[in-house]
Amino acid sequence: MKSFMKNTPAYKRLVPLSEESRDFFVGKKVLITGGSGFLGSSLAQSLVELGASVTLLDAQLPLYGGNRFNIENVLEIVEFVEGDIRDYELMRTVLSGQDVVFNLAAQVSYLDASDQPFEDLDINGRGHLTVLEAAKEVAPEATIVFSSSRMVYGKVIELPVREDHPTEPLSLYGIHKLLGEKYYAYYARAFGLKTVSIRIPNPYGPRQQMKHGKYSIVGWFVRQAMDDGALTIYGDGKQARDYLYVDDIVDAFLQVSQKGAGGQVYNVGTHERVTFTEMVDAVLAATGSGHKEFVPWPEDYERNETGDYIADTTKLEQVTGWKPQVMLREGLEETVAYYKKYKDHYWST
Amino acid sequence: MKSFMKNTPAYKRLVPLSEESRDFFVGKKVLITGGSGFLGSSLAQSLVELGASVTLLDAQLPLYGGNRFNIENVLEIVEFVEGDIRDYELMRTVLSGQDVVFNLAAQVSYLDASDQPFEDLDINGRGHLTVLEAAKEVAPEATIVFSSSRMVYGKVIELPVREDHPTEPLSLYGIHKLLGEKYYAYYARAFGLKTVSIRIPNPYGPRQQMKHGKYSIVGWFVRQAMDDGALTIYGDGKQARDYLYVDDIVDAFLQVSQKGAGGQVYNVGTHERVTFTEMVDAVLAATGSGHKEFVPWPEDYERNETGDYIADTTKLEQVTGWKPQVMLREGLEETVAYYKKYKDHYWST
Repeated sequence: MKSFMKNTPAYKRLVPLSEESRDFFVGKKVLITGGSGFLGSSLAQSLVELGASVTLLDAQLPLYGGNRFNIENVLEIVEFVEGDIRDYELMRTVLSGQDVVFNLAAQVSYLDASDQPFEDLDINGRGHLTVLEAAKEVAPEATIVFSSSRMVYGKVIELPVREDHPTEPLSLYGIHKLLGEKYYAYYARAFGLKTVSIRIPNPYGPRQQMKHGKYSIVGWFVRQAMDDGALTIYGDGKQARDYLYVDDIVDAFLQVSQKGAGGQVYNVGTHERVTFTEMVDAVLAATGSGHKEFVPWPEDYERNETGDYIADTTKLEQVTGWKPQVMLREGLEETVAYYKKYKDHYWST
Repeated sequence: MKSFMKNTPAYKRLVPLSEESRDFFVGKKVLITGGSGFLGSSLAQSLVELGASVTLLDAQLPLYGGNRFNIENVLEIVEFVEGDIRDYELMRTVLSGQDVVFNLAAQVSYLDASDQPFEDLDINGRGHLTVLEAAKEVAPEATIVFSSSRMVYGKVIELPVREDHPTEPLSLYGIHKLLGEKYYAYYARAFGLKTVSIRIPNPYGPRQQMKHGKYSIVGWFVRQAMDDGALTIYGDGKQARDYLYVDDIVDAFLQVSQKGAGGQVYNVGTHERVTFTEMVDAVLAATGSGHKEFVPWPEDYERNETGDYIADTTKLEQVTGWKPQVMLREGLEETVAYYKKYKDHYWST
């Protein structure tokens, strides 16, 4: 633990770790797939602090979020395995003996999913089926958490969005996330695996990839602003989004793995109604540089536009006591502080 | 057409072909994948009669429903291609120039799906994605019909089941059928393809495979009864099912391809409330042989049991005018007559 503390990148935790989480995770064997990515590496920081015995698996695929720097400060403490969730034999090996699995490995861009539909199916569909098939054999008692997405809903019909809202994805990305959810629910029902899926809205925070703008609009805008560039707003920018800070997501992962793993699906979100333009203004305020630019919507945008999105998180709150704690301005300040310090590790490809 | 008529297996059409269908299909180029299977070959009979220019594609995978005898009487008239929907280059070739595509190729057993999850994903997921990707390129104006399943619903919450009933499949088979539906809806929305999905309940009739009992309980019971064997009823046999005769399904395919291909999903079904035991009694009556046997449910059956299923078909009826026309007893009589005549072509493997 000492060696961990001494080279930790500056990181002010905005959501404190609870004593219950400590009691639960101390000594537990935990596997995180996608372990050097944005959410995986952030979760790893918390689990190491909580005293868990952590294994990180990451395929380090070139364009995705895996970044060795994200986990540099815990590399002496955790076990790191470079490998792919689509490798059944490897998954049997790494899953064996695990108490909790956070299965976060993914292709995470809806644009890439559209350009590379078979690759997206292969990673986000077959990859998760592989993990579940292996877990059924070698880790049937493990709790397994899946990171899904608000993109499973498609066009929003009723706000705030509850988990039983219709699921008609507008993208292959959303379709394959829905496929993943159905797998996790099925393996719970059919084989008693302790699975759970979390539908994440627009996540942001330290450790997110900054190499390209194909996912995480907030992260990309932080970079544009820090580079004193233009932040592009399509149309009037009044569409509401649910921008959720990484610490709140990590907290949801930690809590749901303790209390919610019965094959269910849960929303997470801030309850904060933020328009796109307000988000841009908050990024500009946090960075102190950059400027905004309004442009008309492309002609066919409507087919990809979900409408306003605000999550109803009652279900998760009732089961676990989780609540969102970080509002956008605070989260952005911490995000910008992080990237100002570690920019070199994120800007280059 | 003469050569077609002279070697047609005895086949009394229980649902007449309409003049509108003739006007629509005459001279049309039509591709049927899974073309030598149960539904594909039955549809082929009708399309040939309607004057369409028909291509049949079938991979003839050993355990599935493809059977050369099913199409023997139309082989001189149609083009037959032995090939797999997972072959992208082949699909580009065969889709080119088609007006209507019935994409019925599938792995069709929920038991096989459970034993071979990756194979099921590959055929029923990636296979259909392959067809749609190819169609987007070479046949963007074609109408494309997908055969989905009532298995997408899972446990039934409200009867009769409407298309907006929750979709929580209890099997990998149902999950991958749902995946297929989402693909078809997405390619309609995103690229303007004229797609449509039909959720089929329990289908039966001539040309269904009879080699094993892993799908189509009605077909399998017809065989058991004809062989003077036992027809096993689990529990009290009171669960209601929607047994739909092949001619009604073919009629739905024909009608929906003319009027319903806008990315939608439609139920088909009989409206006839038939219990499992009543179905068994009807099979015994139609064959004049065999006997029934009641046995207790296996201990874990509940996790696979959907509860009673009756489809609400209002949506399809309003859009196309389709109505089910064949009740179980009549359909079974025709089915038994067919297999009595052509048993040799279906009993052996």
